[in-house]
Amino acid sequence: MALPVTPLCTVDCIIDLVDHPLRRADRPVLVLIERRYPPHGWALPGGFVDVGEPLAKAAAREALEETSLHIELVEQFFAYSSPQRDPRRHTVSTVFLATATGTPTAADDAGRVAVFTEDNLPQLAFDHGQILADYFTFLRTGKRPGPHR
Amino acid sequence: MALPVTPLCTVDCIIDLVDHPLRRADRPVLVLIERRYPPHGWALPGGFVDVGEPLAKAAAREALEETSLHIELVEQFFAYSSPQRDPRRHTVSTVFLATATGTPTAADDAGRVAVFTEDNLPQLAFDHGQILADYFTFLRTGKRPGPHR
Repeated sequence: MALPVTPLCTVDCIIDLVDHPLRRADRPVLVLIERRYPPHGWALPGGFVDVGEPLAKAAAREALEETSLHIELVEQFFAYSSPQRDPRRHTVSTVFLATATGTPTAADDAGRVAVFTEDNLPQLAFDHGQILADYFTFLRTGKRPGPHR
Repeated sequence: MALPVTPLCTVDCIIDLVDHPLRRADRPVLVLIERRYPPHGWALPGGFVDVGEPLAKAAAREALEETSLHIELVEQFFAYSSPQRDPRRHTVSTVFLATATGTPTAADDAGRVAVFTEDNLPQLAFDHGQILADYFTFLRTGKRPGPHR
């Protein structure tokens, strides 16, 4: 049987920098990267999953590569799969919630790294603005997106 | 840039047959299929996601193809990604919780279809026994698996 062709598997991380001075229980301080390659813009740290690599490992690896942070995964949040979410090709991103401490430093595909709170988020690439909107809803209500997101 | 190679995207459905006489709020009646092709055994309805197809659509399509049921997706449950979960190749399965009514009929890759309750589950292929154990824990506690499952 020929190998089936499917969307590509990716991961993204919502990293709350829990020792940041601006951080409060109801105000996460989020680590975002500015992409070095198109599509340009700010984005969640993340990337492609390697064959043989569980999603959680890929998430921690990509976060480390792009932000130099050793993250602690808290939970799996949601898998985003709209065919339009990446203009280049169809990817399915499983998004993890994570915490970290220390100072992020940009590396690899990240041109810059910076921290943001909900009230000063930048323009985000892909569907990452939607993902963060869903995340803030989840923080307030405990509800994840519906199955058709 | 060459197309990255990642695990393949799949979906599986935990279908609760809500109009079945054995069904109670605390006793879902689950629709399982007996696989026509190796690896043999009973399994959750599911399969590969097509490029251009959101996960939710793939889940409903595979359930219909294999069980003839028009399912109602309730929520996204969890994405399973152990490289060992499928002996043939590395797949990442996003599992959906769904309900359906009526009588399932086997078709497509399903040799047989039958309904089961927690106390009479058959031997399951892949990691589907683990997935159902996680599902019953979720029903009782509201807790999903941890991020490293």
